[in-house]
Amino acid sequence: MSVTAAKGFQAAGIAAGIKENGNPDLALVVNNGPRRAAAGVFTSNRVKAAPVLWSEQVLKGGQVSAVVLNSGGANACTGPKGFQDTHATAEKAAEVLGRGAIEVAVCSTGLIGVLLPMDKLLPGVETAAEALSEHGGEKAAIAIKTTDTVHKTSVVTKDGWTVGGMAKGAGMLAPGLATMLVVLTTDAALDNDVLDKALRAATRTTFDRVDSDGCMSTNDTVLLLASGSAEVTPEYGEFAEAVRQVCDDLGQQLIRDAEGASKDIKVEVVNAASEDDAVEVGRSIARNNLLKCAIHGEDPNWGRVLSAIGTTKAAFEADRLNVAINGVWVCKNGGVGEDREKVDMRYREVHIVADLAAGSETATIWTNDLTADYVHENSAYSS
Amino acid sequence: MSVTAAKGFQAAGIAAGIKENGNPDLALVVNNGPRRAAAGVFTSNRVKAAPVLWSEQVLKGGQVSAVVLNSGGANACTGPKGFQDTHATAEKAAEVLGRGAIEVAVCSTGLIGVLLPMDKLLPGVETAAEALSEHGGEKAAIAIKTTDTVHKTSVVTKDGWTVGGMAKGAGMLAPGLATMLVVLTTDAALDNDVLDKALRAATRTTFDRVDSDGCMSTNDTVLLLASGSAEVTPEYGEFAEAVRQVCDDLGQQLIRDAEGASKDIKVEVVNAASEDDAVEVGRSIARNNLLKCAIHGEDPNWGRVLSAIGTTKAAFEADRLNVAINGVWVCKNGGVGEDREKVDMRYREVHIVADLAAGSETATIWTNDLTADYVHENSAYSS
Repeated sequence: MSVTAAKGFQAAGIAAGIKENGNPDLALVVNNGPRRAAAGVFTSNRVKAAPVLWSEQVLKGGQVSAVVLNSGGANACTGPKGFQDTHATAEKAAEVLGRGAIEVAVCSTGLIGVLLPMDKLLPGVETAAEALSEHGGEKAAIAIKTTDTVHKTSVVTKDGWTVGGMAKGAGMLAPGLATMLVVLTTDAALDNDVLDKALRAATRTTFDRVDSDGCMSTNDTVLLLASGSAEVTPEYGEFAEAVRQVCDDLGQQLIRDAEGASKDIKVEVVNAASEDDAVEVGRSIARNNLLKCAIHGEDPNWGRVLSAIGTTKAAFEADRLNVAINGVWVCKNGGVGEDREKVDMRYREVHIVADLAAGSETATIWTNDLTADYVHENSAYSS
Repeated sequence: MSVTAAKGFQAAGIAAGIKENGNPDLALVVNNGPRRAAAGVFTSNRVKAAPVLWSEQVLKGGQVSAVVLNSGGANACTGPKGFQDTHATAEKAAEVLGRGAIEVAVCSTGLIGVLLPMDKLLPGVETAAEALSEHGGEKAAIAIKTTDTVHKTSVVTKDGWTVGGMAKGAGMLAPGLATMLVVLTTDAALDNDVLDKALRAATRTTFDRVDSDGCMSTNDTVLLLASGSAEVTPEYGEFAEAVRQVCDDLGQQLIRDAEGASKDIKVEVVNAASEDDAVEVGRSIARNNLLKCAIHGEDPNWGRVLSAIGTTKAAFEADRLNVAINGVWVCKNGGVGEDREKVDMRYREVHIVADLAAGSETATIWTNDLTADYVHENSAYSS
C-alpha cells in the first residue's frame, strides 16, 4: 500500500536498467488529487546531491505533482552535468504526465560520484508512467532499495483519511536526517504550511534520532504530498500524530535493516537539564564505536557509556551518573552498580538508559551495534 | 632506553599480579636529578579516572619525583574507593622512595569500572622500587602495555641533553589527547613553565591529531619530567622541537599499533581558511566509519570524503573541493576527477589530501581503517 494507501495517488516501480543486476531501480509517485500540496525536509549535509538541490527548488514552487526516484546511483558530486541530468529527468516526467517540470521532485540513491545512465533512466520514466497504478505503492517501495534487505512501508488510517509512506535506507544513517529517501502521502485536505509544520515536527523526533553509523548522506530527502482526495481536513494535532507514527514506524524499520547489524540499540537519556543535552549525550553514546563493538559482543560495558557521556558539554556531575542496560543499573553514582552478570543481552533489542541526574528532560536515539558484517559490506560497496 | 635515556632517571617494570595472565603490569619512573620540574597534559574527557584527578593535583604542587603506572585496570568510574586506592599507591611509593606523596603521579590503564587489586599493587610498588635501574626504561615501557602488541619508546639526543619517552595505547585513541599514557623525561635544566609550554605545543599537533577510533579515554596522561642532570639549559625553540619530535614519533607508533588496523591513514587538509577549519574537517574525515571501511577494502571512495567534509562548519564551496588519494586527484571541483583506477592502495599507508580551496591553512590528522579485527578485539575486551 505505502504511498498509494491514501486516495488520489498512483505509483509504479520498474527495472530501468540503472542497476547492472537488473533489479527494480526506478519509482514514480503521482498526485492526481484536487490538491498538490507538499512539504519536504532535506539533508543538512553541505555537500548536496543534484536531486536535492533540484527538489528544494521544486518545494519552493509550492506544488508537487510527481516524484521520480531512482536507486543505482546517487547523482551526488557530479557537477553541472549531474544537475542537468536531474533537470532532464523532471522534464521527461513532466512531458509524459502532462505536468510542469517545476512540480516534479527527483530523488536519487546509490554510489556518490558517478553520473546516471540517462539513456536508461529517461526511457525508464516512460515505462514507469505506463505502469502507474493505484496499487503500485509496494512496487515503488521495492524499486528504491539499495543495500536494503527488505522494502519499508507504513500506513496509518484515521476517520476518513490516511497517511502512508515508503522509505529506503540501510547504511549512512545519521541525523540531519537519517539518510534515506522517504515519500509520504496523504489524502487529507491540507495546505503546505500545515504539512510543513507536521513533517518537521515528526522528523525531528524520529528520523533525526536514528543514528546507525554517524555518517550523514548527501541525498536525504523526506517528502510529504497531500492530494486532498479524502475531502477531509483533520485537526492539526491528530494529523501531526499520524505523520509522526508513520515516520516512527519507518525509522524503526530502517534501524532493524541497518547494514550488518545484529543488535538494535535504544539509547534513552533521562533527567537531562535540557532536551538538547539529552540529544547530545544520546548521540555521543550512539556513535561510540567501542561501545557498539561491546554490545555486539553482548558485553554490558557501561564504562564506555560513561566515557561517551564525558565527551559532551551537557550538564552533569560525573559522580551522579547512572546507567542501566536492559533494566539492570550496572552503574550507580558514576561507579560500579548492580552485578553486570545480571544483564541478559541475548535478544536483538538492547536498551541503554543514561540518567544524567541534572533535570527532567529526555530523548531517545536509536542505533545499531558495530559488526564485522558492517565492515565487510562497506568495504566492498563500490567495487 | 625510553624514560632512562636522559640522565638522572631510574625506572623499573615488573609483574605485580594485577593482570591475571602474569604479564608485566607495574612501572615506576623516578627522578633523581637536582631538579624535579614537570609538566602534564590530561584527558579532556569530563569523566576522569581517579589517577587523573590525583595527578592533576600533583602537577599543581609543582614537583614530580616519581610516577607509578599500572596496566590491568583503569581505576576509572570507581568512586571514592578508587580515589583512595590511587592515593594509597602514591603514599606507598613515597614511603618506599623517601619522597612526599604529593610528588608522586599515578597513571592507570585497562578496563573501566573495576577496582584495582590493592593487595597486589602495593607490594608491587615495593618490588618495583627494588628493581629501579638506570637501564630500566625498556622494562617500564613493556609493563604499561594493554592491548598494545609492541612497546613504544623514543629518544632524541641533542648537544649534551636528551629527551626520551615511552607510550602505551592501541585502542580508544582520539583527540584531547590520543588516549594513552605517556611519560617523557629530559635531563635538560628547565623550569615548569618552559616544560609546560613545550609540552602543550607538542601535544597539540601530535597526540591531539591522532584519532584512531574517535573514542576519548578517561585516563589520558602525558607527563614530562626534567631532572636537570645534564646541567644544560637549551634554547626554548630547540627544546620544544625535540619534545615535538619524540611526541610525533610516539604518536606514529600508536597509530601503527592501533587495534585491528590494516591501514594507517594520513588525512591532510590543505588550503583551509583557518587551522581550526582544517582540524575540524580532518577529524570529520578521520571519523567517518564508511570511509574507514572503504579504505580497508582498498576502495578510493572519495564520495565518502566529500560527505564527511559536508557535515562540518568549515569555510568551503562544495563545487571547489578537491580530493587526492595516494597522489591521484580523484575528485576535482566537487565532481569526478582523475580515473580512480589509477589509485594504488596496496600499501599500509594511505594518504588523503582534502583541498578546501578556501585559504592557506593546513592540518594533518592520522587515523586507521575500520576492520573486522577491530570489531572482534573490542567485542571481547572485557570478557
